[in-house]
Amino acid sequence: MPELAPIAFLSASEEAGHLLFTMLVVFAGAKLMGELAEFIGQSAVVGEILAGILLGPAVLGIVQPSVVLSALAELGAMFLLFRIGLEVESEALLRTGKTAVLVAMLGVLLPFATGFLLMHAWGRSTVEALFLGAAMVATSVGITAQVLDSLGVLQHTASRTVMAAAVIDDVLGLIVLALVSSLAKGDFRPLDLALTAFMAIGFTVAVVFYGSKTMQRLKLWVQNFLRGKESDFHLAMVMLLGMGLLSLQAGVAAIIGAFLAGMALSGTVSHRVHDLSSGLSEFLVPFFLVGIGLYFRPAAISSPEALALVAIVAVAAVLSKMLGCGLGAWSLGPADRFRVGAGMVPRGEVGMVVAQIGMGLGAVTDMLYGVVVSMSLLTTIVAPPLLKAAFAKRTINS
Amino acid sequence: MPELAPIAFLSASEEAGHLLFTMLVVFAGAKLMGELAEFIGQSAVVGEILAGILLGPAVLGIVQPSVVLSALAELGAMFLLFRIGLEVESEALLRTGKTAVLVAMLGVLLPFATGFLLMHAWGRSTVEALFLGAAMVATSVGITAQVLDSLGVLQHTASRTVMAAAVIDDVLGLIVLALVSSLAKGDFRPLDLALTAFMAIGFTVAVVFYGSKTMQRLKLWVQNFLRGKESDFHLAMVMLLGMGLLSLQAGVAAIIGAFLAGMALSGTVSHRVHDLSSGLSEFLVPFFLVGIGLYFRPAAISSPEALALVAIVAVAAVLSKMLGCGLGAWSLGPADRFRVGAGMVPRGEVGMVVAQIGMGLGAVTDMLYGVVVSMSLLTTIVAPPLLKAAFAKRTINS
Repeated sequence: MPELAPIAFLSASEEAGHLLFTMLVVFAGAKLMGELAEFIGQSAVVGEILAGILLGPAVLGIVQPSVVLSALAELGAMFLLFRIGLEVESEALLRTGKTAVLVAMLGVLLPFATGFLLMHAWGRSTVEALFLGAAMVATSVGITAQVLDSLGVLQHTASRTVMAAAVIDDVLGLIVLALVSSLAKGDFRPLDLALTAFMAIGFTVAVVFYGSKTMQRLKLWVQNFLRGKESDFHLAMVMLLGMGLLSLQAGVAAIIGAFLAGMALSGTVSHRVHDLSSGLSEFLVPFFLVGIGLYFRPAAISSPEALALVAIVAVAAVLSKMLGCGLGAWSLGPADRFRVGAGMVPRGEVGMVVAQIGMGLGAVTDMLYGVVVSMSLLTTIVAPPLLKAAFAKRTINS
Repeated sequence: MPELAPIAFLSASEEAGHLLFTMLVVFAGAKLMGELAEFIGQSAVVGEILAGILLGPAVLGIVQPSVVLSALAELGAMFLLFRIGLEVESEALLRTGKTAVLVAMLGVLLPFATGFLLMHAWGRSTVEALFLGAAMVATSVGITAQVLDSLGVLQHTASRTVMAAAVIDDVLGLIVLALVSSLAKGDFRPLDLALTAFMAIGFTVAVVFYGSKTMQRLKLWVQNFLRGKESDFHLAMVMLLGMGLLSLQAGVAAIIGAFLAGMALSGTVSHRVHDLSSGLSEFLVPFFLVGIGLYFRPAAISSPEALALVAIVAVAAVLSKMLGCGLGAWSLGPADRFRVGAGMVPRGEVGMVVAQIGMGLGAVTDMLYGVVVSMSLLTTIVAPPLLKAAFAKRTINS
């Protein structure tokens, strides 16, 4: 126990003060930068991510990544996707079905092939090429959802297609990552891979098709026993946490589970549950966005080779995703092709996680890790203005 | 980095799974036990604290205290007090002024003297006696606020008196603790003590008298620059975090700052800000209540001496507080005397913090620490039914 200071006692001491200080700086910094970004006609999302770069180790060093901050970030992303899920009905999502599947598949194939071939041409090892390919695959549905929501176009066909494709993309990305990881470990087990794929696909399909009905029945049954105030909201929270955990068990990201939980509840919950969930996402989402910016490390990409690679990889990541997804959305017409392509561009935290796993396996060098993190950040910063432009041309009926 | 498991990747890995599991168990466990408690006519607060004892190291050992859990608990208490503060106008609180000061002062003097004399009679050292006295002083305003809120009597005169007295009690408790700590360290500096007292009193008085007006002016000024959606709520959050931090700097608990922030904003914020803040407190308060239960360690009080001491100290803590505060509230009449006395009984997390500081100074033995923790828990568990009974006799106009 540290020496007693007259400051900060009668509470959990200095730790509490440090935590509050960090939270205040992150929250106020994010909102300030978000307002500034909007003031100059940019998306607030970009401002909040830039706040993370500014406050984090890369520039000012006021805020360091910590266990508590990443827990708040993780919760922020989950509440964001849950709240967005509440506004999407699974039938509306299923109506985009065939297009969304095409968008997701071409949006996985093209970036993967591009990343792999690019690294090969650059003279890196096959394993590194595989990992860069995998890191270029995964779309960060959180960023896109936040931007679509702030533009007020969540109910647009293109937006629904993007949300559905992003969920499928996550499942496909998981399978690609499992494949690449087992190749990197030199431990290729087709049966395990098939099981992983089966679990992830099975879980998602089951929730999309049967989630809503099951939740409604469960809710009706449980409500017989509930007397407490706000028990509707408590039940929704249990379902959110439970689905997040289940989806992690099935191998998919927790935020996908959160989105599916929201979607399954969308038909049945009251306005009150909406409002209460909004409070949590409004407070926590800045920690998610700032958290992404915190991971930027300019030192890792300071060599001329790395800088060149960052530029090429980032451009390739944007173009290959837009091309792949745009082709998948061909049937929606030119305006929506562009919207869907732009919506799938941000890699956000997902690309970073893939690179981290590659580092853990010793398959990815520090420099390539820095390249992937920068690529994830750049695609994430470029996507909001792209989306804004794509939806700005909108007429009343498109 | 741990070995790659097929489960839980594409997110922050096993840590994310562990965190989600813990949160699900804590939240669902708290709500389940809360419902059960209400089912048998008890307060949900007691059920949620018992859930913490049950899930924690004392019984099942499913949930261990952790940095993230205590951060969520701390935030839960802050949002609870903030939301309660939003419902209290500082003028209404000031009207209870003289009575509240009397309640707080007698509610500090009597328990302190009782604890000190009891330990002396029991043959413990003067330092231990001083610390037990200090631990018996501090009322946990969080528990009381939650119970008053769930009973729907926050606007009652007795409730307002309790809330005002609890804030003053926290400031007085801080001064007592500073005094006792410096005596235990054998390092008695009257000037430092006077400064601590001045800071704490000055901060609280300044916020109560000028907070509301200052916040309104600040808000009007800042709003000139804000364009974003929900910027009212964001501003309120910045004020909440900022006031929590300021109060820590002034030496008072962060939750007191949160309460004062809510109170200062109570005249000006919209319904929307209320609703969004309620979402945060609804989700986070169970972590605060369960967190209190997690600290129960039956092993430390398993000796016959310790058990006897727990029983005597707990009874003395309840009676001395009720007597002191009841005397202070003499002018309110018999029914409200009882209500005010009962409302000030719970020591909650504050008594535990005092004991921890005493441990850190080497002034409190393991056994006495266990006694203080048990006393805090017992007073906290006994208060909700007492309050319920006190308010049950209520007629329309009292």
